[in-house]
Amino acid sequence: MAFEEIVRLHPRPTTVDRDVLLRCVEECLDCGAACTACADASLAENDVEEMRRVIRLCADCADTCDAAARIVVRQTEPDYGVMSTMIVACAAACAACAEECDHHAAHHEHCRVCAEICRRCKEACDDLLARIE
Amino acid sequence: MAFEEIVRLHPRPTTVDRDVLLRCVEECLDCGAACTACADASLAENDVEEMRRVIRLCADCADTCDAAARIVVRQTEPDYGVMSTMIVACAAACAACAEECDHHAAHHEHCRVCAEICRRCKEACDDLLARIE
Amino acid sequence: MAFEEIVRLHPRPTTVDRDVLLRCVEECLDCGAACTACADASLAENDVEEMRRVIRLCADCADTCDAAARIVVRQTEPDYGVMSTMIVACAAACAACAEECDHHAAHHEHCRVCAEICRRCKEACDDLLARIE
Amino acid sequence: MAFEEIVRLHPRPTTVDRDVLLRCVEECLDCGAACTACADASLAENDVEEMRRVIRLCADCADTCDAAARIVVRQTEPDYGVMSTMIVACAAACAACAEECDHHAAHHEHCRVCAEICRRCKEACDDLLARIE
Repeated sequence: MAFEEIVRLHPRPTTVDRDVLLRCVEECLDCGAACTACADASLAENDVEEMRRVIRLCADCADTCDAAARIVVRQTEPDYGVMSTMIVACAAACAACAEECDHHAAHHEHCRVCAEICRRCKEACDDLLARIE
Repeated sequence: MAFEEIVRLHPRPTTVDRDVLLRCVEECLDCGAACTACADASLAENDVEEMRRVIRLCADCADTCDAAARIVVRQTEPDYGVMSTMIVACAAACAACAEECDHHAAHHEHCRVCAEICRRCKEACDDLLARIE
Repeated sequence: MAFEEIVRLHPRPTTVDRDVLLRCVEECLDCGAACTACADASLAENDVEEMRRVIRLCADCADTCDAAARIVVRQTEPDYGVMSTMIVACAAACAACAEECDHHAAHHEHCRVCAEICRRCKEACDDLLARIE
Repeated sequence: MAFEEIVRLHPRPTTVDRDVLLRCVEECLDCGAACTACADASLAENDVEEMRRVIRLCADCADTCDAAARIVVRQTEPDYGVMSTMIVACAAACAACAEECDHHAAHHEHCRVCAEICRRCKEACDDLLARIE
Protein backbone atom coordinates (compact mmCIF):
# COMPACT_ATOMS: atom_id res chain seq x y z
CA MET A 1 0.00 0.00 0.00
CA ALA A 2 1.08 3.59 -0.63
CA PHE A 3 1.21 4.57 3.04
CA GLU A 4 3.88 1.92 3.64
CA GLU A 5 6.12 3.36 0.92
CA ILE A 6 5.71 6.83 2.42
CA VAL A 7 6.69 5.65 5.91
CA ARG A 8 9.77 3.96 4.38
CA LEU A 9 10.72 7.33 2.82
CA HIS A 10 10.37 9.28 6.10
CA PRO A 11 13.48 11.48 6.65
CA ARG A 12 13.70 10.79 10.42
CA PRO A 13 11.94 7.51 11.21
CA THR A 14 11.48 6.09 14.69
CA THR A 15 13.70 3.22 15.81
CA VAL A 16 10.72 0.87 16.20
CA ASP A 17 10.88 -2.25 13.98
CA ARG A 18 9.32 -0.94 10.78
CA ASP A 19 7.73 -4.14 9.49
CA VAL A 20 5.97 -4.77 12.79
CA LEU A 21 4.81 -1.14 12.88
CA LEU A 22 3.52 -1.19 9.31
CA ARG A 23 1.71 -4.48 9.84
CA CYS A 24 -0.05 -2.95 12.85
CA VAL A 25 -1.22 0.05 10.78
CA GLU A 26 -2.42 -2.21 7.96
CA GLU A 27 -4.44 -4.44 10.32
CA CYS A 28 -5.89 -1.37 12.06
CA LEU A 29 -7.07 0.03 8.72
CA ASP A 30 -8.69 -3.23 7.68
CA CYS A 31 -10.13 -3.90 11.15
CA GLY A 32 -11.53 -0.36 11.45
CA ALA A 33 -13.38 -0.67 8.13
CA ALA A 34 -14.41 -4.28 8.89
CA CYS A 35 -15.95 -3.24 12.22
CA THR A 36 -17.83 -0.33 10.61
CA ALA A 37 -19.10 -2.81 7.99
CA CYS A 38 -20.01 -5.49 10.56
CA ALA A 39 -21.93 -3.00 12.75
CA ASP A 40 -23.80 -1.97 9.61
CA ALA A 41 -24.51 -5.55 8.47
CA SER A 42 -25.65 -6.50 11.99
CA LEU A 43 -28.05 -3.55 11.99
CA ALA A 44 -29.69 -4.95 8.85
CA GLU A 45 -30.21 -8.47 10.27
CA ASN A 46 -33.68 -9.76 11.19
CA ASP A 47 -32.51 -10.48 14.74
CA VAL A 48 -31.21 -6.93 15.26
CA GLU A 49 -32.59 -7.02 18.84
CA GLU A 50 -29.96 -9.65 19.64
CA MET A 51 -27.22 -7.66 17.89
CA ARG A 52 -27.13 -4.56 20.08
CA ARG A 53 -23.95 -5.47 21.93
CA VAL A 54 -22.07 -6.49 18.77
CA ILE A 55 -23.10 -3.24 17.03
CA ARG A 56 -21.91 -1.20 20.01
CA LEU A 57 -18.56 -3.00 20.36
CA CYS A 58 -17.92 -2.87 16.59
CA ALA A 59 -18.46 0.90 16.71
CA ASP A 60 -16.02 1.28 19.60
CA CYS A 61 -13.48 -0.97 17.86
CA ALA A 62 -13.71 1.04 14.63
CA ASP A 63 -13.02 4.24 16.58
CA THR A 64 -9.97 2.84 18.39
CA CYS A 65 -8.55 1.23 15.22
CA ASP A 66 -8.88 4.45 13.22
CA ALA A 67 -7.19 6.50 15.98
CA ALA A 68 -4.44 3.91 16.50
CA ALA A 69 -3.66 3.75 12.75
CA ARG A 70 -3.14 7.53 12.66
CA ILE A 71 -0.94 7.62 15.76
CA VAL A 72 1.19 4.59 14.86
CA VAL A 73 1.80 5.72 11.28
CA ARG A 74 3.38 9.00 12.46
CA GLN A 75 7.19 8.84 12.84
CA THR A 76 8.13 12.39 13.83
CA GLU A 77 8.97 12.98 17.53
CA PRO A 78 6.88 10.13 18.94
CA ASP A 79 5.90 9.85 22.60
CA TYR A 80 6.01 6.12 23.34
CA GLY A 81 3.69 6.47 26.32
CA VAL A 82 0.99 7.95 24.09
CA MET A 83 1.60 5.34 21.41
CA SER A 84 1.59 2.34 23.75
CA THR A 85 -1.52 3.34 25.75
CA MET A 86 -3.37 3.86 22.45
CA ILE A 87 -2.28 0.43 21.22
CA VAL A 88 -3.40 -1.13 24.52
CA ALA A 89 -6.84 0.50 24.08
CA CYS A 90 -7.04 -0.76 20.50
CA ALA A 91 -6.07 -4.31 21.51
CA ALA A 92 -8.71 -4.24 24.29
CA ALA A 93 -11.41 -3.12 21.85
CA CYS A 94 -10.37 -5.80 19.33
CA ALA A 95 -10.50 -8.52 22.02
CA ALA A 96 -13.94 -7.45 23.29
CA CYS A 97 -15.33 -7.18 19.76
CA ALA A 98 -13.91 -10.57 18.71
CA GLU A 99 -15.45 -12.25 21.76
CA GLU A 100 -18.89 -10.76 21.10
CA CYS A 101 -18.71 -11.51 17.35
CA ASP A 102 -17.95 -15.16 18.20
CA HIS A 103 -21.40 -15.45 19.82
CA HIS A 104 -23.04 -14.65 16.49
CA ALA A 105 -20.61 -16.37 14.15
CA ALA A 106 -22.74 -19.50 13.70
CA HIS A 107 -25.70 -17.45 12.43
CA HIS A 108 -23.97 -14.53 10.77
CA GLU A 109 -20.96 -15.19 8.57
CA HIS A 110 -19.93 -11.49 8.69
CA CYS A 111 -19.48 -11.79 12.46
CA ARG A 112 -17.17 -14.78 11.93
CA VAL A 113 -15.04 -12.78 9.50
CA CYS A 114 -15.06 -9.78 11.83
CA ALA A 115 -13.95 -11.87 14.83
CA GLU A 116 -11.01 -13.12 12.76
CA ILE A 117 -9.76 -9.71 11.67
CA CYS A 118 -10.22 -8.39 15.24
CA ARG A 119 -8.01 -11.18 16.55
CA ARG A 120 -5.44 -10.56 13.80
CA CYS A 121 -5.41 -6.85 14.65
CA LYS A 122 -5.07 -7.54 18.38
CA GLU A 123 -2.10 -9.79 17.60
CA ALA A 124 -0.46 -7.07 15.49
CA CYS A 125 -1.01 -4.57 18.32
CA ASP A 126 0.49 -6.96 20.87
CA ASP A 127 3.51 -7.57 18.62
CA LEU A 128 4.12 -3.84 18.27
CA LEU A 129 3.71 -3.27 22.01
CA ALA A 130 6.39 -5.91 22.67
CA ARG A 131 8.81 -3.90 20.48
CA ILE A 132 8.08 -0.59 22.21
CA GLU A 133 8.14 -1.54 25.88
CA MET B 1 -25.12 21.17 24.64
CA ALA B 2 -27.55 18.98 22.68
CA PHE B 3 -25.54 15.79 23.11
CA GLU B 4 -25.93 16.05 26.89
CA GLU B 5 -29.71 16.24 26.63
CA ILE B 6 -29.71 13.18 24.36
CA VAL B 7 -27.61 11.15 26.79
CA ARG B 8 -30.03 12.13 29.60
CA LEU B 9 -32.90 10.80 27.44
CA HIS B 10 -31.21 7.42 26.77
CA PRO B 11 -33.66 4.55 27.46
CA ARG B 12 -31.05 2.27 29.11
CA PRO B 13 -28.20 4.40 30.44
CA THR B 14 -25.07 3.02 32.08
CA THR B 15 -24.74 3.24 35.86
CA VAL B 16 -21.66 5.49 35.63
CA ASP B 17 -22.13 8.92 37.28
CA ARG B 18 -23.69 10.91 34.46
CA ASP B 19 -22.36 14.37 35.28
CA VAL B 20 -18.79 13.10 35.44
CA LEU B 21 -19.29 11.20 32.18
CA LEU B 22 -20.80 14.18 30.36
CA ARG B 23 -18.06 16.51 31.59
CA CYS B 24 -15.46 14.09 30.19
CA VAL B 25 -17.17 14.10 26.77
CA GLU B 26 -17.44 17.90 26.76
CA GLU B 27 -13.76 18.37 27.62
CA CYS B 28 -12.75 15.78 25.00
CA LEU B 29 -14.71 17.65 22.31
CA ASP B 30 -13.15 21.00 23.22
CA CYS B 31 -9.66 19.52 23.69
CA GLY B 32 -9.82 17.63 20.38
CA ALA B 33 -10.72 20.80 18.45
CA ALA B 34 -8.23 22.86 20.49
CA CYS B 35 -5.39 20.47 19.65
CA THR B 36 -6.29 20.47 15.94
CA ALA B 37 -6.30 24.29 16.10
CA CYS B 38 -3.02 24.49 18.06
CA ALA B 39 -1.21 22.13 15.67
CA ASP B 40 -2.45 24.35 12.84
CA ALA B 41 -1.45 27.61 14.56
CA SER B 42 1.97 26.17 15.42
CA LEU B 43 2.47 25.21 11.77
CA ALA B 44 1.97 28.87 10.79
CA GLU B 45 4.54 30.24 13.28
CA ASN B 46 7.87 31.66 12.12
CA ASP B 47 9.72 29.21 14.37
CA VAL B 48 7.94 26.19 12.91
CA GLU B 49 11.24 24.25 13.04
CA GLU B 50 11.02 24.39 16.84
CA MET B 51 7.35 23.38 16.80
CA ARG B 52 7.63 19.89 15.30
CA ARG B 53 7.10 18.02 18.56
CA VAL B 54 4.14 20.16 19.63
CA ILE B 55 2.49 19.71 16.22
CA ARG B 56 2.94 15.96 16.42
CA LEU B 57 1.63 15.62 19.98
CA CYS B 58 -1.34 17.93 19.29
CA ALA B 59 -2.27 15.71 16.33
CA ASP B 60 -2.07 12.57 18.49
CA CYS B 61 -4.07 14.25 21.26
CA ALA B 62 -6.80 15.34 18.83
CA ASP B 63 -7.11 11.74 17.60
CA THR B 64 -7.40 10.25 21.10
CA CYS B 65 -9.85 12.93 22.29
CA ASP B 66 -12.13 12.44 19.28
CA ALA B 67 -12.15 8.65 19.74
CA ALA B 68 -12.66 8.91 23.52
CA ALA B 69 -15.61 11.32 23.11
CA ARG B 70 -17.38 8.84 20.81
CA ILE B 71 -16.78 5.83 23.06
CA VAL B 72 -17.67 7.57 26.33
CA VAL B 73 -20.87 9.14 24.96
CA ARG B 74 -22.30 5.70 24.06
CA GLN B 75 -24.47 4.17 26.80
CA THR B 76 -25.71 0.92 25.23
CA GLU B 77 -24.03 -2.30 26.40
CA PRO B 78 -20.69 -0.76 27.36
CA ASP B 79 -17.51 -2.76 27.91
CA TYR B 80 -15.75 -1.02 30.78
CA GLY B 81 -12.37 -2.47 29.84
CA VAL B 82 -12.63 -0.85 26.39
CA MET B 83 -13.86 2.41 27.87
CA SER B 84 -11.21 2.65 30.59
CA THR B 85 -8.20 1.77 28.38
CA MET B 86 -9.37 4.40 25.88
CA ILE B 87 -9.66 7.00 28.66
CA VAL B 88 -6.18 6.08 29.90
CA ALA B 89 -4.82 6.61 26.36
CA CYS B 90 -6.61 9.95 26.11
CA ALA B 91 -5.29 11.11 29.51
CA ALA B 92 -1.75 10.09 28.47
CA ALA B 93 -2.00 12.07 25.22
CA CYS B 94 -3.37 15.11 27.08
CA ALA B 95 -0.53 14.97 29.64
CA ALA B 96 2.18 14.66 26.96
CA CYS B 97 0.64 17.45 24.87
CA ALA B 98 0.25 19.78 27.88
CA GLU B 99 3.88 19.26 28.85
CA GLU B 100 5.15 20.05 25.36
CA CYS B 101 2.82 23.05 24.97
CA ASP B 102 4.20 24.44 28.25
CA HIS B 103 7.64 24.73 26.60
CA HIS B 104 6.21 27.16 24.03
CA ALA B 105 3.68 28.98 26.22
CA ALA B 106 5.91 32.00 26.86
CA HIS B 107 6.27 32.70 23.12
CA HIS B 108 2.98 31.41 21.78
CA GLU B 109 -0.21 32.26 23.63
CA HIS B 110 -2.14 29.51 21.78
CA CYS B 111 0.17 26.91 23.33
CA ARG B 112 -0.60 28.30 26.79
CA VAL B 113 -4.34 27.96 26.15
CA CYS B 114 -3.87 24.48 24.68
CA ALA B 115 -1.84 23.31 27.70
CA GLU B 116 -4.69 24.45 29.96
CA ILE B 117 -7.46 22.63 28.11
CA CYS B 118 -5.25 19.50 27.87
CA ARG B 119 -4.83 19.52 31.63
CA ARG B 120 -8.56 20.12 32.16
CA CYS B 121 -9.36 17.22 29.82
CA LYS B 122 -6.86 14.93 31.57
CA GLU B 123 -8.50 15.78 34.88
CA ALA B 124 -11.96 14.98 33.52
CA CYS B 125 -10.61 11.65 32.17
CA ASP B 126 -9.04 10.82 35.55
CA ASP B 127 -12.30 11.67 37.36
CA LEU B 128 -14.27 9.38 35.07
CA LEU B 129 -11.72 6.58 35.43
CA ALA B 130 -12.08 6.79 39.23
CA ARG B 131 -15.84 6.17 38.85
CA ILE B 132 -15.42 3.20 36.53
CA GLU B 133 -12.72 1.21 38.26
CA MET C 1 -14.54 27.05 24.51
CA ALA C 2 -10.75 26.76 24.39
CA PHE C 3 -10.58 26.01 20.68
CA GLU C 4 -12.18 29.37 19.90
CA GLU C 5 -9.53 31.25 21.89
CA ILE C 6 -6.80 29.33 20.04
CA VAL C 7 -8.26 30.20 16.63
CA ARG C 8 -8.41 33.87 17.70
CA LEU C 9 -4.67 33.66 18.55
CA HIS C 10 -3.68 32.14 15.17
CA PRO C 11 -0.71 34.05 13.69
CA ARG C 12 -2.03 34.00 10.10
CA PRO C 13 -5.81 33.55 10.14
CA THR C 14 -8.00 33.18 7.07
CA THR C 15 -10.07 36.15 5.93
CA VAL C 16 -13.34 34.28 6.48
CA ASP C 17 -15.66 35.92 9.05
CA ARG C 18 -14.37 34.44 12.29
CA ASP C 19 -17.58 34.40 14.31
CA VAL C 20 -19.44 32.57 11.57
CA LEU C 21 -16.56 30.11 11.21
CA LEU C 22 -16.32 29.44 14.95
CA ARG C 23 -20.06 28.98 15.26
CA CYS C 24 -19.91 26.37 12.49
CA VAL C 25 -17.16 24.45 14.32
CA GLU C 26 -19.05 24.60 17.61
CA GLU C 27 -22.29 23.30 16.07
CA CYS C 28 -20.36 20.54 14.25
CA LEU C 29 -18.79 19.38 17.53
CA ASP C 30 -22.15 19.30 19.32
CA CYS C 31 -23.98 17.77 16.35
CA GLY C 32 -21.31 15.10 15.87
CA ALA C 33 -21.55 13.99 19.50
CA ALA C 34 -25.35 14.32 19.47
CA CYS C 35 -25.63 12.05 16.42
CA THR C 36 -23.31 9.45 17.97
CA ALA C 37 -25.49 9.61 21.12
CA CYS C 38 -28.78 9.44 19.18
CA ALA C 39 -27.64 6.43 17.12
CA ASP C 40 -26.71 4.76 20.40
CA ALA C 41 -29.99 5.66 22.15
CA SER C 42 -31.99 4.49 19.10
CA LEU C 43 -30.13 1.16 19.19
CA ALA C 44 -31.35 0.64 22.78
CA GLU C 45 -35.04 1.32 21.99
CA ASN C 46 -37.61 -1.48 21.99
CA ASP C 47 -38.59 -0.63 18.43
CA VAL C 48 -35.01 -0.88 17.15
CA GLU C 49 -36.32 -2.61 13.99
CA GLU C 50 -37.95 0.70 13.04
CA MET C 51 -34.82 2.67 13.89
CA ARG C 52 -32.40 1.26 11.31
CA ARG C 53 -32.50 4.26 9.00
CA VAL C 54 -32.11 6.79 11.80
CA ILE C 55 -29.15 4.86 13.24
CA ARG C 56 -27.49 4.74 9.84
CA LEU C 57 -28.02 8.45 9.06
CA CYS C 58 -26.90 9.51 12.55
CA ALA C 59 -23.67 7.55 12.03
CA ASP C 60 -23.08 9.23 8.66
CA CYS C 61 -23.87 12.65 10.14
CA ALA C 62 -21.44 12.13 13.04
CA ASP C 63 -18.68 11.26 10.56
CA THR C 64 -19.27 14.32 8.36
CA CYS C 65 -19.57 16.68 11.37
CA ASP C 66 -16.33 15.42 12.93
CA ALA C 67 -14.45 15.79 9.62
CA ALA C 68 -15.96 19.23 8.91
CA ALA C 69 -15.04 20.52 12.40
CA ARG C 70 -11.39 19.57 11.84
CA ILE C 71 -11.18 21.11 8.38
CA VAL C 72 -13.02 24.34 9.23
CA VAL C 73 -11.02 24.95 12.42
CA ARG C 74 -7.72 24.98 10.48
CA GLN C 75 -6.61 28.47 9.37
CA THR C 76 -3.23 27.82 7.71
CA GLU C 77 -3.18 27.85 3.90
CA PRO C 78 -6.81 26.84 3.34
CA ASP C 79 -8.16 25.53 0.05
CA TYR C 80 -11.68 26.96 -0.19
CA GLY C 81 -12.79 24.30 -2.65
CA VAL C 82 -11.92 21.58 -0.12
CA MET C 83 -13.54 23.50 2.71
CA SER C 84 -16.76 24.31 0.86
CA THR C 85 -17.36 20.82 -0.57
CA MET C 86 -16.85 19.38 2.93
CA ILE C 87 -19.35 21.87 4.37
CA VAL C 88 -21.84 20.99 1.63
CA ALA C 89 -21.47 17.29 2.54
CA CYS C 90 -21.94 18.09 6.22
CA ALA C 91 -25.05 20.18 5.55
CA ALA C 92 -26.51 17.37 3.39
CA ALA C 93 -25.93 14.81 6.15
CA CYS C 94 -27.50 17.14 8.75
CA ALA C 95 -30.58 17.69 6.55
CA ALA C 96 -31.07 13.97 5.87
CA CYS C 97 -30.57 13.09 9.55
CA ALA C 98 -32.97 15.81 10.75
CA GLU C 99 -35.66 14.64 8.34
CA GLU C 100 -35.38 11.02 9.50
CA CYS C 101 -35.22 12.00 13.19
CA ASP C 102 -38.46 13.97 12.71
CA HIS C 103 -40.26 10.70 11.89
CA HIS C 104 -39.42 9.36 15.36
CA ALA C 105 -39.66 12.58 17.37
CA ALA C 106 -43.17 11.89 18.66
CA HIS C 107 -42.11 8.58 20.23
CA HIS C 108 -38.48 9.27 21.06
CA GLU C 109 -37.57 12.57 22.68
CA HIS C 110 -33.86 12.08 21.83
CA CYS C 111 -34.75 12.09 18.13
CA ARG C 112 -36.56 15.40 18.58
CA VAL C 113 -33.47 16.94 20.21
CA CYS C 114 -31.22 15.43 17.53
CA ALA C 115 -33.36 16.83 14.70
CA GLU C 116 -33.04 20.29 16.26
CA ILE C 117 -29.25 20.25 16.59
CA CYS C 118 -28.96 18.83 13.04
CA ARG C 119 -31.00 21.76 11.70
CA ARG C 120 -28.96 24.24 13.76
CA CYS C 121 -25.74 22.72 12.41
CA LYS C 122 -27.02 22.79 8.82
CA GLU C 123 -27.86 26.48 9.27
CA ALA C 124 -24.37 27.21 10.61
CA CYS C 125 -22.87 25.35 7.62
CA ASP C 126 -25.04 27.29 5.18
CA ASP C 127 -24.07 30.60 6.83
CA LEU C 128 -20.38 29.76 6.52
CA LEU C 129 -20.79 28.65 2.90
CA ALA C 130 -22.39 32.01 2.08
CA ARG C 131 -19.25 33.77 3.40
CA ILE C 132 -16.84 31.58 1.43
CA GLU C 133 -18.45 31.50 -1.99
CA MET D 1 -9.13 -7.41 2.88
CA ALA D 2 -11.58 -8.51 5.59
CA PHE D 3 -13.89 -5.51 5.21
CA GLU D 4 -14.56 -6.49 1.60
CA GLU D 5 -15.67 -9.99 2.61
CA ILE D 6 -17.98 -8.49 5.24
CA VAL D 7 -19.60 -6.14 2.72
CA ARG D 8 -20.13 -9.10 0.38
CA LEU D 9 -21.94 -10.92 3.24
CA HIS D 10 -24.28 -7.98 4.01
CA PRO D 11 -27.91 -9.22 4.25
CA ARG D 12 -29.41 -6.20 2.42
CA PRO D 13 -26.73 -4.59 0.24
CA THR D 14 -27.21 -1.44 -1.79
CA THR D 15 -27.68 -1.74 -5.53
CA VAL D 16 -24.50 0.23 -6.27
CA ASP D 17 -21.88 -1.72 -8.25
CA ARG D 18 -20.05 -3.52 -5.47
CA ASP D 19 -16.58 -3.75 -7.02
CA VAL D 20 -16.52 -0.03 -7.73
CA LEU D 21 -17.75 0.70 -4.22
CA LEU D 22 -15.18 -1.58 -2.56
CA ARG D 23 -12.35 -0.15 -4.64
CA CYS D 24 -13.34 3.34 -3.49
CA VAL D 25 -13.24 2.27 0.18
CA GLU D 26 -9.87 0.57 -0.29
CA GLU D 27 -8.32 3.63 -1.94
CA CYS D 28 -9.77 5.90 0.74
CA LEU D 29 -8.20 3.77 3.49
CA ASP D 30 -4.79 3.78 1.80
CA CYS D 31 -5.01 7.46 0.85
CA GLY D 32 -6.11 8.51 4.34
CA ALA D 33 -3.14 6.75 5.95
CA ALA D 34 -0.78 7.94 3.18
CA CYS D 35 -1.80 11.57 3.74
CA THR D 36 -1.35 11.28 7.52
CA ALA D 37 2.10 9.77 6.83
CA CYS D 38 3.03 12.41 4.23
CA ALA D 39 2.00 15.31 6.51
CA ASP D 40 4.17 13.71 9.19
CA ALA D 41 7.16 13.14 6.86
CA SER D 42 6.87 16.70 5.52
CA LEU D 43 6.92 18.04 9.09
CA ALA D 44 10.28 16.31 9.62
CA GLU D 45 11.92 17.77 6.49
CA ASN D 46 14.63 20.45 6.72
CA ASP D 47 12.58 22.77 4.51
CA VAL D 48 9.48 22.50 6.71
CA GLU D 49 8.84 26.24 6.17
CA GLU D 50 8.10 25.44 2.52
CA MET D 51 5.91 22.50 3.46
CA ARG D 52 3.12 24.28 5.35
CA ARG D 53 0.57 24.06 2.56
CA VAL D 54 1.26 20.39 1.82
CA ILE D 55 0.98 19.53 5.54
CA ARG D 56 -2.33 21.36 5.77
CA LEU D 57 -3.84 19.80 2.64
CA CYS D 58 -2.63 16.30 3.60
CA ALA D 59 -4.38 16.71 6.97
CA ASP D 60 -7.62 17.79 5.28
CA CYS D 61 -7.36 14.93 2.77
CA ALA D 62 -6.83 12.37 5.55
CA ASP D 63 -9.97 13.63 7.30
CA THR D 64 -12.15 13.46 4.18
CA CYS D 65 -10.80 10.02 3.16
CA ASP D 66 -11.44 8.54 6.62
CA ALA D 67 -15.00 9.92 6.70
CA ALA D 68 -15.72 8.83 3.12
CA ALA D 69 -14.47 5.27 3.78
CA ARG D 70 -16.89 4.93 6.72
CA ILE D 71 -19.88 6.31 4.84
CA VAL D 72 -19.28 4.38 1.62
CA VAL D 73 -18.69 1.05 3.38
CA ARG D 74 -22.15 1.18 5.03
CA GLN D 75 -24.89 -0.61 3.03
CA THR D 76 -27.96 -0.28 5.27
CA GLU D 77 -30.57 2.35 4.26
CA PRO D 78 -28.18 4.66 2.39
CA ASP D 79 -28.99 8.26 1.50
CA TYR D 80 -27.37 8.80 -1.89
CA GLY D 81 -27.30 12.58 -1.47
CA VAL D 82 -25.21 12.19 1.69
CA MET D 83 -22.98 9.62 0.05
CA SER D 84 -22.39 11.56 -3.15
CA THR D 85 -21.68 14.94 -1.52
CA MET D 86 -19.16 13.22 0.78
CA ILE D 87 -17.48 11.57 -2.21
CA VAL D 88 -17.35 14.93 -4.01
CA ALA D 89 -15.65 16.47 -0.94
CA CYS D 90 -13.17 13.58 -0.80
CA ALA D 91 -12.36 13.88 -4.51
CA ALA D 92 -11.82 17.65 -4.10
CA ALA D 93 -9.44 17.11 -1.19
CA CYS D 94 -7.53 14.43 -3.13
CA ALA D 95 -7.19 16.72 -6.16
CA ALA D 96 -5.96 19.68 -4.09
CA CYS D 97 -3.53 17.51 -2.14
CA ALA D 98 -2.15 15.85 -5.29
CA GLU D 99 -1.56 19.23 -6.93
CA GLU D 100 0.33 20.57 -3.90
CA CYS D 101 2.34 17.34 -3.47
CA ASP D 102 3.42 17.61 -7.11
CA HIS D 103 5.25 20.86 -6.26
CA HIS D 104 7.48 18.98 -3.83
CA ALA D 105 7.80 15.68 -5.67
CA ALA D 106 11.20 16.47 -7.18
CA HIS D 107 12.74 17.05 -3.73
CA HIS D 108 10.68 14.73 -1.58
CA GLU D 109 9.95 11.23 -2.81
CA HIS D 110 7.15 10.78 -0.24
CA CYS D 111 5.27 13.68 -1.87
CA ARG D 112 5.55 11.95 -5.26
CA VAL D 113 4.06 8.76 -3.82
CA CYS D 114 1.35 10.72 -2.00
CA ALA D 115 0.36 12.61 -5.17
CA GLU D 116 -0.05 9.25 -6.94
CA ILE D 117 -2.32 7.68 -4.32
CA CYS D 118 -4.35 10.92 -4.11
CA ARG D 119 -4.95 10.77 -7.85
CA ARG D 120 -5.82 7.07 -7.66
CA CYS D 121 -8.27 7.78 -4.84
CA LYS D 122 -9.84 10.70 -6.71
CA GLU D 123 -10.32 8.41 -9.72
CA ALA D 124 -12.01 5.75 -7.55
CA CYS D 125 -14.29 8.44 -6.08
CA ASP D 126 -15.19 9.73 -9.54
CA ASP D 127 -15.93 6.17 -10.74
CA LEU D 128 -18.24 5.57 -7.79
CA LEU D 129 -19.99 8.92 -8.29
CA ALA D 130 -20.70 7.99 -11.91
CA ARG D 131 -22.49 4.84 -10.68
CA ILE D 132 -24.60 6.69 -8.10
CA GLU D 133 -25.80 9.71 -10.05
